[in-house]
Amino acid sequence: MQELFLIGIGTGNPDHVTLEGIRAMREADVVLIPRKGEEKSDLADLRRQIVAVHLGAQARVVEFDLPVRDARAEYYDAVERWHDAIAQSWRAAVPEGAARVALLIWGDASLYDSSLRIAGRLDVPRVRVVPGITSLQALTAAHAIPLNEVGAPVMITTGRQLRDNGWPKDANTVAVMLDGSCSFSGLDPAGLHIWWGAYVGMEQEILIAGPLAEMSGDILSARAAARERHGWIMDIYVLRRG
Amino acid sequence: MQELFLIGIGTGNPDHVTLEGIRAMREADVVLIPRKGEEKSDLADLRRQIVAVHLGAQARVVEFDLPVRDARAEYYDAVERWHDAIAQSWRAAVPEGAARVALLIWGDASLYDSSLRIAGRLDVPRVRVVPGITSLQALTAAHAIPLNEVGAPVMITTGRQLRDNGWPKDANTVAVMLDGSCSFSGLDPAGLHIWWGAYVGMEQEILIAGPLAEMSGDILSARAAARERHGWIMDIYVLRRG
Repeated sequence: MQELFLIGIGTGNPDHVTLEGIRAMREADVVLIPRKGEEKSDLADLRRQIVAVHLGAQARVVEFDLPVRDARAEYYDAVERWHDAIAQSWRAAVPEGAARVALLIWGDASLYDSSLRIAGRLDVPRVRVVPGITSLQALTAAHAIPLNEVGAPVMITTGRQLRDNGWPKDANTVAVMLDGSCSFSGLDPAGLHIWWGAYVGMEQEILIAGPLAEMSGDILSARAAARERHGWIMDIYVLRRG
Repeated sequence: MQELFLIGIGTGNPDHVTLEGIRAMREADVVLIPRKGEEKSDLADLRRQIVAVHLGAQARVVEFDLPVRDARAEYYDAVERWHDAIAQSWRAAVPEGAARVALLIWGDASLYDSSLRIAGRLDVPRVRVVPGITSLQALTAAHAIPLNEVGAPVMITTGRQLRDNGWPKDANTVAVMLDGSCSFSGLDPAGLHIWWGAYVGMEQEILIAGPLAEMSGDILSARAAARERHGWIMDIYVLRRG
């Protein structure tokens, strides 16, 4: 492997792909597609669909199984060992003679994505990142809202951080990702507005917005029902104070 | 005007455009292109180039002059009046009979962009936002770095905020946009790393990264020289502590 392309493909709308992403896929000798287990097979399907549309018959695709993170171990340790194992699975999946290898990254490799850290474990001479639409952009686009107030800062954080540390200082706008436990429901909702979305950019997209005090219950029940229906969920939200 | 498309086109690389962006341009009855004055004519040229490539002869394009912000007035007042004037200039530019109007947005309409606030002043039944690659993503992609540390928050802020309020609490990573006065040079550089870029995604792209204490001077001189050479500059950076 001489060059690894980490190609951001957006968040489920095949049209989120950029022309740069399509060109990079075509330049690659092989595209690796992870299978993620039954419950997220929609995501592997999307990657297959994107490759089929843009590469057609010339596509050289290799599917491989991703290792699973040890949910019983201490979080940061488990993540380190998991990333080691993923790096090995990438290496093992690359066919003999393939110099330029592409991975299609959900969203963008810069935001709560481990691909660059995993790539750092491999001895690849060159890593090229092709930016893609993030779920945060898909969310703000779907709600047709700006992320920031005029000249004001925005904190991007995780559900875990919001739960453990409360509302961050120095920002009236907070974007929350990776929140499996609905941390918004633990905040004092007074004066907070929420713009929430699940499966943003995909056909299953669900959007709810309004004062947090009024919307919190609606979001909790919509989220539970959608997760039950689809077998998995990815959601994201923006909160604004005042 | 029945529908306004705000189409994010990325940051100067014509290949940043998404398939969704191209489709939206083709659906529009007219594409409005602002002229921004001599010093940023590169940006109007890029929009013309994108339209020419993707719409070809069928393109119905209207160019119009953007009003100028009153630099002497109080900042927030001046911005409000300026946005009023821009809304008027959009309305005046739309040809008779054009129902679906597209504007090509530098980067993405969600991030330090006024298009949604300006659109709010017009009585358009529907505003559709098409997400695009931001300069922040183009920067992290060019440096091949993740924006966040594992599970950690990121503050996105402006040069003005950083200068007036110092390093924000609750974040070890800060992304700084709209910094015409190099606010990084006013920070205590101890323990800070910087990833800086100008014209990210464009042919003129300049990248500098390293410990802030060592790189600050290099960035100041590279920035001044590039601004002199091109007549304008857009830059952005990420700072990380520890």
